[in-house]
Amino acid sequence: MAAAATSGSLRAMTVDQYVVAQRDRLLEELLAYLRIPSVSTDPGHATDVRAAAEFSAAALARLGFDAQIHDTPGHPVVVAHGPALPGAPRVLIYGHYDVQPVEPLELWDADPFEPTLSDTTITARGASDDKGQIYAHVKGVEALLAVHGALPVNLTFVIEGEEEIGSPNLSAFVAEHAERLAADVVVISDGAMVAPGIPTITYGLRGLTYVTVRVRAAGRDLHSGAYGGGVPNALDALARLLAGLKDEHGRVQVPGFYDDVSALSDAERAAMARVPFDEAAFRADAGVSATPGEAGYSLVERIWARPTLDVNGLSGGFQGEGAKTVIAAEAMAKVSCRLVPDQDPQDVFAKLRAHLQASATEGVSVEVRAEGLAPAAMTPLDAPSVAAARAALLQVWGREPVFARSGGSIPIVAEFQRLLGAEPLLIGFGQEDDRAHAPNERFAVHDYLQGVRVSAALLQALARPRAGAPQGP
Amino acid sequence: MAAAATSGSLRAMTVDQYVVAQRDRLLEELLAYLRIPSVSTDPGHATDVRAAAEFSAAALARLGFDAQIHDTPGHPVVVAHGPALPGAPRVLIYGHYDVQPVEPLELWDADPFEPTLSDTTITARGASDDKGQIYAHVKGVEALLAVHGALPVNLTFVIEGEEEIGSPNLSAFVAEHAERLAADVVVISDGAMVAPGIPTITYGLRGLTYVTVRVRAAGRDLHSGAYGGGVPNALDALARLLAGLKDEHGRVQVPGFYDDVSALSDAERAAMARVPFDEAAFRADAGVSATPGEAGYSLVERIWARPTLDVNGLSGGFQGEGAKTVIAAEAMAKVSCRLVPDQDPQDVFAKLRAHLQASATEGVSVEVRAEGLAPAAMTPLDAPSVAAARAALLQVWGREPVFARSGGSIPIVAEFQRLLGAEPLLIGFGQEDDRAHAPNERFAVHDYLQGVRVSAALLQALARPRAGAPQGP
Repeated sequence: MAAAATSGSLRAMTVDQYVVAQRDRLLEELLAYLRIPSVSTDPGHATDVRAAAEFSAAALARLGFDAQIHDTPGHPVVVAHGPALPGAPRVLIYGHYDVQPVEPLELWDADPFEPTLSDTTITARGASDDKGQIYAHVKGVEALLAVHGALPVNLTFVIEGEEEIGSPNLSAFVAEHAERLAADVVVISDGAMVAPGIPTITYGLRGLTYVTVRVRAAGRDLHSGAYGGGVPNALDALARLLAGLKDEHGRVQVPGFYDDVSALSDAERAAMARVPFDEAAFRADAGVSATPGEAGYSLVERIWARPTLDVNGLSGGFQGEGAKTVIAAEAMAKVSCRLVPDQDPQDVFAKLRAHLQASATEGVSVEVRAEGLAPAAMTPLDAPSVAAARAALLQVWGREPVFARSGGSIPIVAEFQRLLGAEPLLIGFGQEDDRAHAPNERFAVHDYLQGVRVSAALLQALARPRAGAPQGP
Repeated sequence: MAAAATSGSLRAMTVDQYVVAQRDRLLEELLAYLRIPSVSTDPGHATDVRAAAEFSAAALARLGFDAQIHDTPGHPVVVAHGPALPGAPRVLIYGHYDVQPVEPLELWDADPFEPTLSDTTITARGASDDKGQIYAHVKGVEALLAVHGALPVNLTFVIEGEEEIGSPNLSAFVAEHAERLAADVVVISDGAMVAPGIPTITYGLRGLTYVTVRVRAAGRDLHSGAYGGGVPNALDALARLLAGLKDEHGRVQVPGFYDDVSALSDAERAAMARVPFDEAAFRADAGVSATPGEAGYSLVERIWARPTLDVNGLSGGFQGEGAKTVIAAEAMAKVSCRLVPDQDPQDVFAKLRAHLQASATEGVSVEVRAEGLAPAAMTPLDAPSVAAARAALLQVWGREPVFARSGGSIPIVAEFQRLLGAEPLLIGFGQEDDRAHAPNERFAVHDYLQGVRVSAALLQALARPRAGAPQGP
């Protein structure tokens, strides 16, 4: 392999020494990656998106991987296979080379695609989400090859270009190539540690049921003078429907919503209570003066491990300046539930729809359409991959990792489980306040370089025979 | 006076005969008026708006009126005075020459400003609201002059160009010219009869308190995965606030809302029960399958004479296609109350604001801003002008008029009462289904010509000494 062949002089180094020695180049390469404005949602950036795919593939080809760019109905998927090692574990590393739009541009301190690098921080769109994190894995592989000359596992990279638009083509792609992509473990670094310096294994993701609710009450918009007091009002009706979805204690009122919810064990609740979660920082970051939610659960439990319901959008009637005395014929809301094991997204959708339709007031029709359904995902805490990840993080960071759950959803994780039979292993290298999706997105230089080290250590740990019983949270 | 001087040959005719003889020209003149696209809300039509003012003034000048176009900070007001008749009643006829926008243009069967005339119907923007109705008065004056050679009252026309944008300058204009505009009666024909062929005197208008509600819950929009279950949601909070404004029986829950409501008398309720109100036609017109509203009141009572509360607009969060898992930092609603005597719009605003702010859920701030405040207006049923109107309508239509209230608000009516000491007299010549503000606005030819006759008869009736006790509903 090319990289291995040229790294003979480095063979005496450790991965850590390699990273220290190569620091500037590792950063420069990432900056070059970040300069590509691969905004997947913008058709005007289609060429840039492909350029980022080519950059990704070239970086892996230089390490001796068989890297291919696969076209899809949307943006391409990069798949790169390392050398086959019969009998060794099969590891798939998933990430994405596309980025969020940059608007509002005026809130950036500098061009989002001309990265700025300080002693501590890389600032650019995609720095943390996800170019910086996936590139840490690429460079971890490079370090491992440089130091050891070969990889200890069968390794495949899947780097897609549509994560920021909901991965519309990835599931079909993975299904089509399931045999070639089959893996024991899928490693995903597209998230955050619970706090800076605290290595984190995310073993649970929430699922999602997302719906559009349309309420219709009249044949046309009506004048509130001539009709007010005598006709159903779509906006009144919608407000009443939405207000009825939760009680004043934050408990979802959809019948059967909690039926299949897997209860938190005492051990898990105790572990969550020990998570170094800074509520003051959480409030300051979100700009909230209170953290209301479901009664009977801590804030961490509520955002990581309890199902929720939120109205995500509302629209109807007159929305301009001033006054227009209209009674709107129709109104729309977006409503979503974050789900936990073992809620079935389709079942929750059916229950939510039935409840909304049954609750409609007189003269009002309610249509509920599913916009997104994703099951929750959990990594078994006794999985060998979890033990390996724990060992790798302990080795690099010098402290035991925290076992966290995430309130978010990554639908492809459940798909990897379903289609490839792979255990998901989520190890975020970034921080919650990296401003993913927001202006001035950033990634700490230290987090990037630690990511390189963790990636190398993880591949080695995954290759080791399982030793001793794994420890959960 | 010019018109009188040239109409000598018509002196032997009645007004009715005059209208029959002049039918085609009366229609042609109105069509010319309707061809002027005087859309007051569109700055691109400013020249057209002025042209409509000039048309209005010229039509009155031809009748010998002292017609002036008065500039305002917005569109001009046309004021035209007939000859002074010391000791005779002072009558002011108010109307507007501006029209609503025509969008959506594709729903019109023909150019909204190229009127189509069938045997029965004039179709054009402004046909009924209000060019057709105000021009009926102009032509009523012409007929009276033609037949009798002089007017029996001191008559002033005030025709404004900003009614469709809320008359922002009229109140100040009337206040400034109050001495010259002082009147005993203000006649307004900018509305509808209760049904075709049923002459109608509208003796009550509802008032209005219109507010914008802004809810803020967080410093920025938050991701529902990372924050859902742990932060206040502006949209959830808004829905809950709005749903709490009325109970399931349609009763407004704002404390003190009904305190000053003047109760309907048994006589008035009995009169309303006799109004030939076609509920099936009302439902079909509105496209509603039910007519819910405040329990304990008939549909007519609810839309004419009971205070209401409606949400008129909603906006917040993600409103596009598909799904975005955002927890919105803020949300907005438009809410309005139709008011009845003796509710004070400012008092209702204060009560509504206090209730909304007191009902805010944890971590949510609520701002409530008044967008429009107008008191209800009532014409005393024992007013001499009501007796005159009754006599005029009976004479022209051959049947007793119906006494109606209107659910709508015309803020300037209360201003005329306050500033000029004038009794308002609302006699709509149009129909509820004339499609005012909507595509294919129309005005029945018969309603237009009857309007001409009613205007002439009314001026004569107003000049007669009051005879006998007036009859209310």
